This record gives sequence, structure tokens and C-alpha cells, in this order.
Amino acid sequence: MTDKTDKSAPKSAIWGGRFETGPSQIMERINASVDFDRRLYAEDIAASVAHCAMLVAQGIISPADGQAIQGGLETIKGEIEAGQFTFKASLEDVHMNIEARLAELIGEAAGRLHTARSRNDQVATDFRLWVRGALDRMIAAIAQLQDALIGRAEEHAGTVMPGFTHLQPAQPVTFGHHLLAYVEMLGRDAGRAGDCRARLNESPLGAGALAGTSFPIDREMTARALGFDRPAGNSLDAVSDRDFAIEYLSTAALLAVHLSRLGDEIVLWSSRGFAFIRLPDALSTGSSMLPQKRNPDAAELVRAKSGRVIGALNTLLVVIKGLPLAYSKDMQEDKEPVFDAADSLDLCLAAMEGMVRGLAVDGDAMRAAAEQANSEALDLADWMVKNLDRPFRDAHHAAGRLVKLAEERGLRLAQLTLEDLRSVEPGMTGEALEILDLDRALSVRASFGGTAPDNVRAACGRARQRFLKTEE
Amino acid sequence: MTDKTDKSAPKSAIWGGRFETGPSQIMERINASVDFDRRLYAEDIAASVAHCAMLVAQGIISPADGQAIQGGLETIKGEIEAGQFTFKASLEDVHMNIEARLAELIGEAAGRLHTARSRNDQVATDFRLWVRGALDRMIAAIAQLQDALIGRAEEHAGTVMPGFTHLQPAQPVTFGHHLLAYVEMLGRDAGRAGDCRARLNESPLGAGALAGTSFPIDREMTARALGFDRPAGNSLDAVSDRDFAIEYLSTAALLAVHLSRLGDEIVLWSSRGFAFIRLPDALSTGSSMLPQKRNPDAAELVRAKSGRVIGALNTLLVVIKGLPLAYSKDMQEDKEPVFDAADSLDLCLAAMEGMVRGLAVDGDAMRAAAEQANSEALDLADWMVKNLDRPFRDAHHAAGRLVKLAEERGLRLAQLTLEDLRSVEPGMTGEALEILDLDRALSVRASFGGTAPDNVRAACGRARQRFLKTEE
Amino acid sequence: MTDKTDKSAPKSAIWGGRFETGPSQIMERINASVDFDRRLYAEDIAASVAHCAMLVAQGIISPADGQAIQGGLETIKGEIEAGQFTFKASLEDVHMNIEARLAELIGEAAGRLHTARSRNDQVATDFRLWVRGALDRMIAAIAQLQDALIGRAEEHAGTVMPGFTHLQPAQPVTFGHHLLAYVEMLGRDAGRAGDCRARLNESPLGAGALAGTSFPIDREMTARALGFDRPAGNSLDAVSDRDFAIEYLSTAALLAVHLSRLGDEIVLWSSRGFAFIRLPDALSTGSSMLPQKRNPDAAELVRAKSGRVIGALNTLLVVIKGLPLAYSKDMQEDKEPVFDAADSLDLCLAAMEGMVRGLAVDGDAMRAAAEQANSEALDLADWMVKNLDRPFRDAHHAAGRLVKLAEERGLRLAQLTLEDLRSVEPGMTGEALEILDLDRALSVRASFGGTAPDNVRAACGRARQRFLKTEE
Amino acid sequence: MTDKTDKSAPKSAIWGGRFETGPSQIMERINASVDFDRRLYAEDIAASVAHCAMLVAQGIISPADGQAIQGGLETIKGEIEAGQFTFKASLEDVHMNIEARLAELIGEAAGRLHTARSRNDQVATDFRLWVRGALDRMIAAIAQLQDALIGRAEEHAGTVMPGFTHLQPAQPVTFGHHLLAYVEMLGRDAGRAGDCRARLNESPLGAGALAGTSFPIDREMTARALGFDRPAGNSLDAVSDRDFAIEYLSTAALLAVHLSRLGDEIVLWSSRGFAFIRLPDALSTGSSMLPQKRNPDAAELVRAKSGRVIGALNTLLVVIKGLPLAYSKDMQEDKEPVFDAADSLDLCLAAMEGMVRGLAVDGDAMRAAAEQANSEALDLADWMVKNLDRPFRDAHHAAGRLVKLAEERGLRLAQLTLEDLRSVEPGMTGEALEILDLDRALSVRASFGGTAPDNVRAACGRARQRFLKTEE
Repeated sequence: MTDKTDKSAPKSAIWGGRFETGPSQIMERINASVDFDRRLYAEDIAASVAHCAMLVAQGIISPADGQAIQGGLETIKGEIEAGQFTFKASLEDVHMNIEARLAELIGEAAGRLHTARSRNDQVATDFRLWVRGALDRMIAAIAQLQDALIGRAEEHAGTVMPGFTHLQPAQPVTFGHHLLAYVEMLGRDAGRAGDCRARLNESPLGAGALAGTSFPIDREMTARALGFDRPAGNSLDAVSDRDFAIEYLSTAALLAVHLSRLGDEIVLWSSRGFAFIRLPDALSTGSSMLPQKRNPDAAELVRAKSGRVIGALNTLLVVIKGLPLAYSKDMQEDKEPVFDAADSLDLCLAAMEGMVRGLAVDGDAMRAAAEQANSEALDLADWMVKNLDRPFRDAHHAAGRLVKLAEERGLRLAQLTLEDLRSVEPGMTGEALEILDLDRALSVRASFGGTAPDNVRAACGRARQRFLKTEE
Repeated sequence: MTDKTDKSAPKSAIWGGRFETGPSQIMERINASVDFDRRLYAEDIAASVAHCAMLVAQGIISPADGQAIQGGLETIKGEIEAGQFTFKASLEDVHMNIEARLAELIGEAAGRLHTARSRNDQVATDFRLWVRGALDRMIAAIAQLQDALIGRAEEHAGTVMPGFTHLQPAQPVTFGHHLLAYVEMLGRDAGRAGDCRARLNESPLGAGALAGTSFPIDREMTARALGFDRPAGNSLDAVSDRDFAIEYLSTAALLAVHLSRLGDEIVLWSSRGFAFIRLPDALSTGSSMLPQKRNPDAAELVRAKSGRVIGALNTLLVVIKGLPLAYSKDMQEDKEPVFDAADSLDLCLAAMEGMVRGLAVDGDAMRAAAEQANSEALDLADWMVKNLDRPFRDAHHAAGRLVKLAEERGLRLAQLTLEDLRSVEPGMTGEALEILDLDRALSVRASFGGTAPDNVRAACGRARQRFLKTEE
Repeated sequence: MTDKTDKSAPKSAIWGGRFETGPSQIMERINASVDFDRRLYAEDIAASVAHCAMLVAQGIISPADGQAIQGGLETIKGEIEAGQFTFKASLEDVHMNIEARLAELIGEAAGRLHTARSRNDQVATDFRLWVRGALDRMIAAIAQLQDALIGRAEEHAGTVMPGFTHLQPAQPVTFGHHLLAYVEMLGRDAGRAGDCRARLNESPLGAGALAGTSFPIDREMTARALGFDRPAGNSLDAVSDRDFAIEYLSTAALLAVHLSRLGDEIVLWSSRGFAFIRLPDALSTGSSMLPQKRNPDAAELVRAKSGRVIGALNTLLVVIKGLPLAYSKDMQEDKEPVFDAADSLDLCLAAMEGMVRGLAVDGDAMRAAAEQANSEALDLADWMVKNLDRPFRDAHHAAGRLVKLAEERGLRLAQLTLEDLRSVEPGMTGEALEILDLDRALSVRASFGGTAPDNVRAACGRARQRFLKTEE
Repeated sequence: MTDKTDKSAPKSAIWGGRFETGPSQIMERINASVDFDRRLYAEDIAASVAHCAMLVAQGIISPADGQAIQGGLETIKGEIEAGQFTFKASLEDVHMNIEARLAELIGEAAGRLHTARSRNDQVATDFRLWVRGALDRMIAAIAQLQDALIGRAEEHAGTVMPGFTHLQPAQPVTFGHHLLAYVEMLGRDAGRAGDCRARLNESPLGAGALAGTSFPIDREMTARALGFDRPAGNSLDAVSDRDFAIEYLSTAALLAVHLSRLGDEIVLWSSRGFAFIRLPDALSTGSSMLPQKRNPDAAELVRAKSGRVIGALNTLLVVIKGLPLAYSKDMQEDKEPVFDAADSLDLCLAAMEGMVRGLAVDGDAMRAAAEQANSEALDLADWMVKNLDRPFRDAHHAAGRLVKLAEERGLRLAQLTLEDLRSVEPGMTGEALEILDLDRALSVRASFGGTAPDNVRAACGRARQRFLKTEE
């Protein structure tokens, strides 16, 4: 679409015979929404087609008028998609722009389309359809990102890296296990998106301005035609409800926060301090001034854009807060935060998928970092619990003293001798020394959900089953 | 509970043998969470009891130790509930306070409770249980408020009032219909709470610090004992996931926004400009300076507290944004916003239920306001569409001119003569005059979800069925 | 400007010889900022001109190169303003687009412009200049709105209306007094904007990528040329500081909240329940369905847009939170919230000025509302304090009982007889009855800052002096 | 203070004779603010003392009553500070609790204190005084933190470390230079706090409920007595203005964001990947499960608490948004976010000062990281510009190729031979090789604000002068 808004169009008094002067220029600028709500054109036309078919079926308008209207609407859709439609700010919004063009195309019959309908239920219907589509896109993009993560997790089910708490190495995990944590998060995100979709899927069409209508309309018919599960049960609520947009933004914000966590890790992992991964050239950038740089810009932008989505959620909550029923013009501020969040997430999900699929893993660097971390201390403590029957708190204390001993000598824990171990805990045996092996430390963590490589492989299979089953 | 935090307790080095100096006073103050996390005491003890039973069942600790631990925990629970427990800030958090007391009570065996467990999975489990309880309370309180609203809606299924858009009277509705709009909103809130509950209901217990454990634990057993549906599938995710808290706050924020809308309407309706309702004395306040005042303080506070819940949601999204896995201490900031939001909502829901049940309705004032609003203009336009076959846009224009005519003469639309009508639209007949009757205007809006009194009565029945069925 | 972004431009590897593949399409889309940062073109050219002049003055580049660069930049500015410049997304941002065009126009010399400069200090400088301009526009628009408010306040210095607390009439005030409250708020807004401007007015230019430069640059000279007060004192801070944008948004958010309060009052005052004012036709809208409506859309949009500005502030705080020094790509998300907030406020300030200048006041309706409010009760209590030496709390209690007595009889307080007064307080005299006069109640509130009409007139003069002095 | 709120106190009808039933329990809970607003006790008593002295001076109450009131207030202050005062929720707020106790102590005269005053101007005055005190504490704590930073900066004016962009090493800087960036940020924070203090320093006392008073009060006198610069100019604004609280929170939020950035860097720097610093034992914590851990909990909490302060700002903006004038009960929600933010910042500033003063710097690790970063590439490019007259863009390209060459051979840039350099740029000379020295790279960045050690020392002196001058 390359159509432009014609802001110099002649003033048009669309509100009938009551106003003595047309809206001033400021009013037009603050009031007009066509610059952004034209994104609803396809939904608007679909809803009008459904409404029109129902009016004919119920005998409210004639089949001839119905046919003219539907033909006109199809023509308009074609014009918009071909970039040949000029939206006019003087006509305020996408709805009026389409209706005015319909009048040009088919004359008087166009005026009958708005029978038993108000802009309030029309915009509520259009926007709901748009958000439903955005949820569907979100769900599909999440699945693609999960697919990328599961693929890399399988590949690295046995690649050891330090697991961090407080950004300090805590215990060895596998890189695959780490990636699967994001698969879980994303699975919940998709679940929330699905719940939101199910809850929004009621049709406001037929609620009129707020009170319903005296025309003998069939709301079930229009609901069905537009893929809704049922008509909304209360006309006042139907036109003043923006829950679906807020719930969409809540879902989007949490998804964005998950992506920001992974983005932050990618920035960390590609820093020289960690050097665990290397992003593909296509997803890094250089510096205009510093020739040696390789910057994880895409990961930083994904991290940052979570702020934008959180801000969008905040905006809409604030707009709706304290608004009396039913429709207030405040609600016109509902669309831009949703559009902006949806666009941001489309990009972030795609960029993140690209990064996950393309990142090169330096398994040696990961292993070296895990080895230097003395993360076997817990295993040593656990060994004392199991073999020496020490209470955990005492064993933990003894292991802590061994870490300190090693640090003082500039050694890794695994480099201590049996004598060293015995200086702290006389019960130590050679078996305890064997504990201090990284791969052993991994493979024993075989509790459900744990990081043992075999566990991780099984978890990949389960994840594929739970999250990607529709693709098979 | 009246127990107090003992901030002067002697420094205690709970982290074992590695630190040379104890935490400084500032560190203790910024680090200690026991002032707020002691609200988790019941959940913490329940989770410890479940963990202990499992350790015994799996042969990891002896039955004798298990019995000692369980007995000790029960004693502690009794002490806390009797207000005889002194929480110490030097012991940081509720978990360590309970564990230290257990050691006092039962000695060495206490140290075995922490086998195969970390504070990370412990706190994740406790907090999840608490939020689950908060959701259950929320769902129950919503149902009570819905019950109050449906009761008043049935009572006022035929009480006419102006339906507003832009705070201008638009069309007559019934007060019952208006109240049912909130029943719909609250129904969605309860739905979201239920979805959140289902999604959070996985047990983190057994995830250890982040990687799982080498002890042969049975995570299914502890999950079942605590009412979880299953163990969480990834140990890293299990300890670093606070989705359930954010989703709780998202649900809470939208619920709070709904309550703020009703709060705003109660403030408006009890103002002298509207005078539709009068709050009961018990829920109004006077002024320290102005003897004639009767202030809707509770409604204002409900409206305002939405800001607080929105702020809490915002806080937690910001805290989690960009955090690398797994646990970071930042996450300790997760509880206070949730506690504060839950407390605020408990109060707001109860206060709103009281206001709804207690408000006195002035039906005459409502009707008078509806009559002065010329809201029959749309019916007149619709009549022209149906009877004179005018396109809606033309009929709308003609009706607008009639409103202007009436306004110029200082009359209501219903006070115009047939001659007046014909001066704008010559096709008008006496039937058109009859249209201008308020009760008729109500009763014809019989489309599904519309405001006709019979519709409203039917909708009350359906709402009772959908939302309150468990109470029957 | 009607220039468009050419998104199909050939891939260009602006980062030199290090990358083997060009940025992928997704990367280009997430990374490119030219769609929005081209709004900085004038600031970018101004900063380049200043930098170039300094490079020549310091002998770092030759005068001939300097002249070529300056000529080229002027040409480019002309092209952009004539709508003849094609911005290319493949060149990422406004800076690279201008530099690439400069190379086309003047060849090799273009490459010398970036000597001793980085994109980091360049973008920091450009954006700072833009925000400074936005603050200047904000300050000017605030003064115009204050001028409108003071004008209407003088006109209505003696127009009585109910002063509200809790939306309940509390005491009579004058409409002029009420409007002056907003003049105070706006005065603080302008003060904050001025403070922000003073604080931001340091030049980052010369900070390089983050560490300064080894070229013998003169930062004082470029600072002066761009109207800055001084160069920023620390190069790391200079490139990573976005305080000025956050402080701008904080100022904008509070200003937007003030406008939202006035917007809410305009919505209330134009509702039928109050009917204190009527907006001019040019700033009202009708309804597509309801011919009798006259909607205060502009006031509602002003109220709503505060949500948007609050969201923008929130966004930028979240983006910057927790970012390590110096520049991170996250910061590219700084511009859109600022642009959006600035555009929103430009519109809101203009629309509000139009509403204030154009609204028609119904003084009779205001007076009638004030009379029905029994707001004289406090005066009666004060009379008892002054004349009967009653403690205030007792007098308040007695006045409360009189209000109740009047309400029970369906009378206004002023309609009670002396006997009635004496039934509650035997010391009452005829003088007390005279108290119950609205105009008297106004005129006695002559304490500094009080609502007595003469006070209000004097306050208008003072406000003109304080806030609009530069206009005389 | 250890006083407790007595929630079981008998119901007291403080609103006079008009209500038939007392407030219900829910109402009391939602309405009462004494649990938090008792923090205002000192300000409340100070304002009452000032008001009382003025009433006496103006002859509104007798000197005897004045003396009794002042004596009673002093007694109450003593009781509160000795923990002997029982606050009752049934008396709603701190103001009523104090007034009721005053009546107990001195009888009837207590009732005269509220003459010519309302709770609205009372609470506005008290809260403003409290925020003023919080600003003074903030300013002092900022200066202490700046003092710590400048001290460490002087100590490390020559300690080389990598300067980062995108968390990638970009150019060498000194650790002192890095710390001074925070001194700049904090300087702006203190500036904002000072501006906020100056703007809030107007006295609302004497505004009454909203309209001023008919008593001959002297607002200048009470303003002076309380340290205000002048009385507020408009009574409606005086009681409904919460700008000072919002501006305080804006200032607090940005300060918290600055601290969060430093907190994040401390977390990074103490990670094994960087290992630049080591926090003192007193400000680190261990792990309950992992004996080898040394966690930067305090830094993480400082980072996280920024979310809390951002949330508090958000809350108050939302609460005030769209509120009509003058006082609404919504405003009672103003105090808790401010108290919470102030408490959080007190802790964060103190903890950060402790960390800065106590952190141990590993200069060798910093230097090694700087050496491995090839950050001299820019100097090489600059050398080509200066000595070979290459346009910067070309020189940048050549330096990029050299970085790539070094990386391919597993060498640092400084390890390339002259031959290697000439293979890319034949004009290279031995002098170019000398460029590749880290200390040289530092010392040449001597532009104002740059990182050359001598610059940094000079900057420390200037910072001491600008920010800490009052301490000398």
C-alpha cells in the first residue's frame, strides 16, 4: 500500500445538519484517526460485508441494495490494495473514508449500509478482528522461535556451560538445557495468547451505539460470518470493552520481557568476558569509528523494545482507567499502542529466531568457564550428606571452607589433594575426589527437569510434542 | 499475627565459613526480606512438610528425622500464628528464620531438611502457592461482586436512565443493563484469573538452585502433595520464572481498571449534577471543614487504587526485564508489589460490593435526565429508514435538524408538533410522534444484548447461570 | 517534506571490510532508524557545519575541504526541504544518508567530515538540539495557553460557581479563580521545562565514541556555535546520557496530566448534569448514529493522550534502566517516544487553547448549582466561632445538623428561618441569616490566594506579570 | 517509634451530626490512612504550631488558648517519639489522631486550632514539608556518593580498562574516567532535586478547603515560620496540587535508573567473565546451597529497586490523571509511593556508597582485557588520516581489514608486523607500530572531557569544586 492521506481535502461536515461551522484545523488533526486506523481497512470491509449480508437476509435492506454494497466494497478493497485509494483526514477515519467512497461508487444505496449499526460497534468489531489476527501471527512466530530453540538444544544437549545465579557460575548445566528454559517461557506466552484469543472471540456487531437496536437483526449470523464464537452479551459492554487490547498488550509485554532476557544473555555471551557465542555477520554490525567492533545490535534492540511494549501496555491501562461507560473518545487512543507493540514483536521474534538459528557456539570456552567456577562444591557437600551422613548445613559449611582453601592457593577445587580435603573433613575418601568431574556433575543431575544430557534430550522430544505438534 | 521483627539480633553468618566479616548493617537492611516475606510462612511450612515426606519416602532421610522435622514445623506454625515467634532480620528471610528455629527445636536433624533443595526452588514454590491462594480469593470476591450486581440489575431491569457516550446522553438504557456491563467485565476478569491459576500450577520444587539434583527425589510426589498439576519441566526456568506473578498483576491491573470505571461512575452519579444514586452513610464520609458534605470517598479510593495496581505491574515487568538466567537477587523485589496489589484488590472488591448492595437509586432523577436528552432522535431516524425508505445517512441528517429546531425553541424533541416534524421531513406521520416515548424506545431495543427490560431480565438469568453456577 | 524511504536500495556495507555478508533483511528492518531519525536532519546538518568549521579553524582539515563540505551540506538541506531527497533504509540512519549523499556531491572530501567524531557523539548532539527545540516550543505554547486562561479568568473574575471537593459542591468560588489554578500548574510546567533546558544545554560533540579524541579539537568552539553553554565534562557520560530526554518526558507527562485534569473538567462541565459551558461547534463533534449529540471529543482526546505521554516516559525509563556504559544500541529506542510525546503535546496544547478561548460560559447554571449546594454551611460555622466563641469543631457539628434539617424539609440552607437556626444553636441572630448569601460568601474569602472577586482580579494581574512578561 | 495502630478502637463519628450510622469496617479499612500518614507527625505538629502562633498574632484566638495548644502539641510530639502514643484507625489519619489527643489533654481549646484551616490545606502542607525533607536527604546522600566516586576516581585516574560500547571493548579508558561519568549523572540528579525543592517551597496553609477563608489570617507569617519562600498563589491549586510529589518521584526515578546502571556494571565487573573488581565481604552474600558463591546481592537489589521507583512514579501519575479540581480522596494515594521511593533510595544510595568505597580493583585484569580488545584500531585509522592524509572513511576501512587479519592469525593487533600493516596500507611506517601502545592510546585522548589520565585528575578537581564545595 502506498496510498497517502490527503490532508488538504475540502472540509466535510459528516455530522449532519446541526453544526454551523466545520471542524477547525486543530480539531481535525487531533480528531482524525485515518492515519493509523486505515490499517483496519480489510477488517472493516469484512465486517461491512457480513453486516450487509445479514441485513439482506433479515429483509432490512433489499437484495439489490445488498448486491450493490458488496460490489462496491470489493472494488474499494481492490483500490486500497492497489495503492489507488486516497484517504482523507477530513473524513476522520477509515470507516467514513470507505463509506464516502462507497457513496461515490454506488450512490444512495451506500447510505443503507449503516442501518442498525453505529461507528461504535463497527470500530469495536474491526479492532477485535485485527487483534485476533495479531494473536494468530504471534502464536505462529512463537512456534517458529521454539522450533529454532529446540533444534539448537538438541544439538547442544551435552555441551557443558556454567549455570549462573547472580551472574556467578553456580552449577554446570548444558547449553541445551539453558535454551529449553526459553522454550518453556515461550510455551506459556503462546498459552496466554491462546487464552486471550478465546476470550476476545465474541462479536460486538449489533450492539449499536450502546443500547442495541430496534431492527430485527441476527447477531448470530454476523458473528458466525466473521469467525466469532458468539455475539457479546451486553451492548454497553460490547462498545466500551477494550479488555482484548489490554490483554493482548499484557501478553505482548511478558513475551517481550522473555525476549529481553534472552537478548541480554546474547549480549553477555558475545562479550569478550564470556565469549561463549558469536553472532552471524548478518546479525551483527560494525562501528562507524571503531574498526575492530562486532556489535550485537539486534540483541540489544530486542532487549530495548521490551520497554516500548511495556510502555504501550501502560498507556492503554492509563487511557481506560476511570472512564465512564459507554464509549468515550479517549478510546480512540487504543489502536496505536497495539499496532506499535505488534510491529515491534513481529520484528523481535523474527530477529531472535535468526539469532538463535545462526549463532556459533564456542563449546570450549563454555567448558573452560564451567571448570574455573568451582561449581562442584555442591556435589562435594551432597557427597558428605550421602556418605558421611552429615546434615546438609554442616556439609555446606565444610565445602565452603574447601573453596576458600583452593582460592587462597590459586587452584581450582578439582586441583586439591585428598590431604587437602581431609584437612577440613577427615572422613573424605578418594571417591570424593572423583566427584569433582564436570561431566559426572552433569550426568548425575537426572531428576525430572534436571540438566543431565539424557534428560535434556528427552525434554527436547517432549517439547516438540507439546509445542510443535501441529506442524507435523 | 503480632510478631515483630527483631532488628537488633546478633549478626549471624548463615553463609558458612567463607566470609571474614558479617554483613554490614546497610547490607542487612537492603538484603533482608523477612519484613515482608514472612507472609509466606504457611506456604513455606507446607512445602517443607511435603519435601520432608518425600525425602523419607525416597529413603534420603530417615523416618525418625522426618518425624522430628514435621513435628518441629508444626510447632513453629503454631508459634507464628499465636504471635509468639520473633522474626530476625539477621536471618534474612522467612525460610532461614524457620530453619534456624527448627534447629533450636530439634537439633541436628533440622539440617537434613535442606537436602536436595535450594532456597531458589523453595522460594519459587512458596510464592507460587501464595499467588495461587490470592487468585482463589480474587475469583471468589469477583463472584460475590457479580452476585451483588446481578441482584441490583434484576431489581432495576426496567429503571430507565440515559445511556452515555462522551458523557453525553445518547440513548435510554436501563440501570440494570448498565450494571450487567460490569458483570461481563468481571466475568472476563475471573476467566483470566482462572487461566493464570491453571498456568502457574506447576511445581518448581526439586529444581534445586537451578540444575536439578543428584538425589533420587520424586517431584511428582511433592507436586501432588501441594496441589500442583505437575512438576515444572525445566529446572532453570523453574527457579527464574516469575511469569505467574506478572500474569497475576496483569489480571489484577485490568480488574482494578474495571473497578475504577465503576468507581468513577459512582462518583459522577452521586454528584449533584447527576444525583442518580445516594451511597449509604456507612460508605460515605463528611468533611472536617464543610458540614454539608457527603463524600463518595470509598468510590474515589477504588478509582485511585487502580493506579497502585498498574504501578505494581509496571514495577515487576521492569524488574524482570533484561535479567539473565537463572536466579538473580533482583527477583526478591517480586513479592511486595504482589502483596500490595492483592491487599488493595481485596479491599476494593469488598468496598465495591458494599457500595453496590447499599446504594439507593433515584429512579425519578434517572428518568428525568433521560427525557431531557432528546435521545429519541435515533429512533426517529430509524423510523424514517423503515417507513419512508430513506437511506440512514439522510434520515440521520433530518433528525439532527429536528434536534436543532427543538433546542432553538427551548423544547424537548418529544414536545415538537407534527407540523414541526413535517417542516423538515414532509413524509412524517402521527406514528412518528408516538416514537418519541421513552419506554417504547427502551422496549424496542430487543436485539440480543440490547437494553429492553425483558432482555435485561433474561440476561440476569443467563449471568447467574454462567458466573454463579457453583453457588447453587 | 514528502521524501520517502527507499527500502529497496541496494545493500551497502557501511561498516568497512570486515563482514563477509551484508545485513539480512530483518536486521536492516530492526536496525534502521532512518524512518524516524530523519526528523533530526536540520540538527544533524547544523552540527556537521559547526564541526567542520572547527576542524578547519584547528587546521585538522583544509579550508578547501571545509568549504566543499559546507557547500555540500547546504545543498543537501535544500534537497531535503524541497522533498527531493531519497532516504535509504540500507544506509541505516539520517547521519549515514547525509554523509553518503555528501560523498556523491563532493567526493573524497566528504570522508574527512567524520574526522575526530563518532556517530555516538553526533547522535547525542543532534538529539539534544532537537529536544532543546521541543522545550522551546513547549514553553511558548504553555504561555499562549496561560494567556487564554488569564483572559477568561479576568472576564469571569466574579462569575460564581460551586467549588468542588470529591465532585461534591464544597464552597462557592469564581470561575476565574478556578481557571487561575491551571495558570499556576502551567507556570510550574514552564519552570520545569526551563530547568530541563538549562541542564541539557551542554555539548557532547567531541566526546568521540566514548573516550575523547587525540585530534586537537576545540570543543568550546563547537559548543558556542550550536548555542550550548559549555562542552559536557565527561566523554563517557556525554555519549551515554539520555537524561535530557527522560527529563523532557517527565516534564511532558506532568504537563499532560494537568491538561488531562482540565480536559476532564471540560467533559464534566459540558455534560447535561452540569451544563456550565458549551464548546464551540468547531471543537465539538456529532455522532454517526445519534443526531442529538454534541461531543467534547477534543477534551476527551486531550485527557486520553496523557496516557500516551506517561507511556512514553515509562518506555524510556525502562530502556535505560540497567544499561552498562557507554553507548548501547538500546538507546536507539530513545527518539520515538520523545517525538510521539512532543507531537501529542503540540496538539493538546493547541486544542486546549482553542477550547479555553472558545468555550461559552453559562453563568446562570453555575450560580444555580452553587446555590443548591448549601455550601454556606462553613460560613455559618465560622460565624459561630467568631461571634459566639464556639470551638470550631462544635460549630461544625451545629452547622451539620442545620444542613440535615434543611435536607429533611427539602429546603436550601438559606431558606431556613431564624427559628430553625435557633433550634440548633440558641445564640443565633439575624446577622447569621445574612451570612447565607452567595456573593457575600465569595467576597469575604479575601485571604491571599482566596476566591474573592477582587482577589481574583489582582491575581490575574500578577499572573500576567509572572508568566507573560516577555510578551509585553 | 514503636507505637502501634489500635484497630479495635471504638467507632468515632468525626464528621459531626449528619450521619446516622458510623463507617463500616471495610470503609474504615479503605479510608483510614493513619497506618502510613503517621510518618507526617512531626510536620503536622510543626504546621499546627505555626498556624496557632499566627491565629494568636492575628487575634483570632486568645493567647491563653494558643499557649494551651502549643503545650499540648509538644506533649503529643514527646509521646509519639517515646513510643507512647496509640494511633487509632477509627480516627482515620494522623491529623485527627493528634487533634483528638489534644482535646483529651487541653479540652475545649483544642477545637479552636482548626479555625481557618481545613484538612485539605493541612495535609498539603504536611506532605510538602515531608517531601522537602526527603529532597534534602537525597541531595546530601548524593553528595556523599559523589565524594566516594571522586575519591576512587582520583585513585584510579591512570588505571586502564576497556571502555565498552555494546558491551564490546571499544577504546581504552581509565577506571577513574568511568567513575566520573557517574559523578556527572549524580550532579544532574542533585540539580533536579534542588530545582524541585525550590519549586515546591510555597505554603498551601491558609487555602482552607479550597477557596481561602474569611478569617483575617496572615499567610506570609505561617509560610515564613515553616521555611517556605512564599504562600501559594491560588487556593484551589494549593489544595489539589501534587506536582511536588510527582516531580520528586520523577527525580527519584531517574536517580534510581542511574544507580541501576552502576549496579549492573558492578554485577558485570564482579562476574568471572570480567573479574575487574571484588566486592567487600560485608556487601556480598553466599548461597544456601552453593558454597563457592560470592554474590553481588546489594548491587542486584539496587538495580532492581529502580523498577520499584519507576512503578511509584507511574502510580502517582495514574492516580492524578484526569482528576477534577479540587481535592478528591484519590489523592490520599499520594503518600505511600513517595514514602516507598524515599525509603528505597535512602537504602540504595547508602549501599552504593558502601560498594564504591569498598570495592577492590584488579588493575591487571582490567589492563589485560583492554589489551585483548584491539581497541587501538581507531588510533591506527586516525594515524592514517593525520599522516597519510587519508579520508577517515578509507582509513577506517583499512584498519578494519587489519583487525580481521590479526583475528585470522589469532594475534592481537599490536602483535602484527610492519609488513602486515603494509600489506593493507603501503604507506605505513614504524611510527604506526608505536601507536599500538595502550598507555599512549590513553594519554593522547586529551581533548576536554577525554580519558587521558591527566585530564581525569583535573576533572576530579573540578568535580570536587562543583559538587562538593559546601563541604570544604
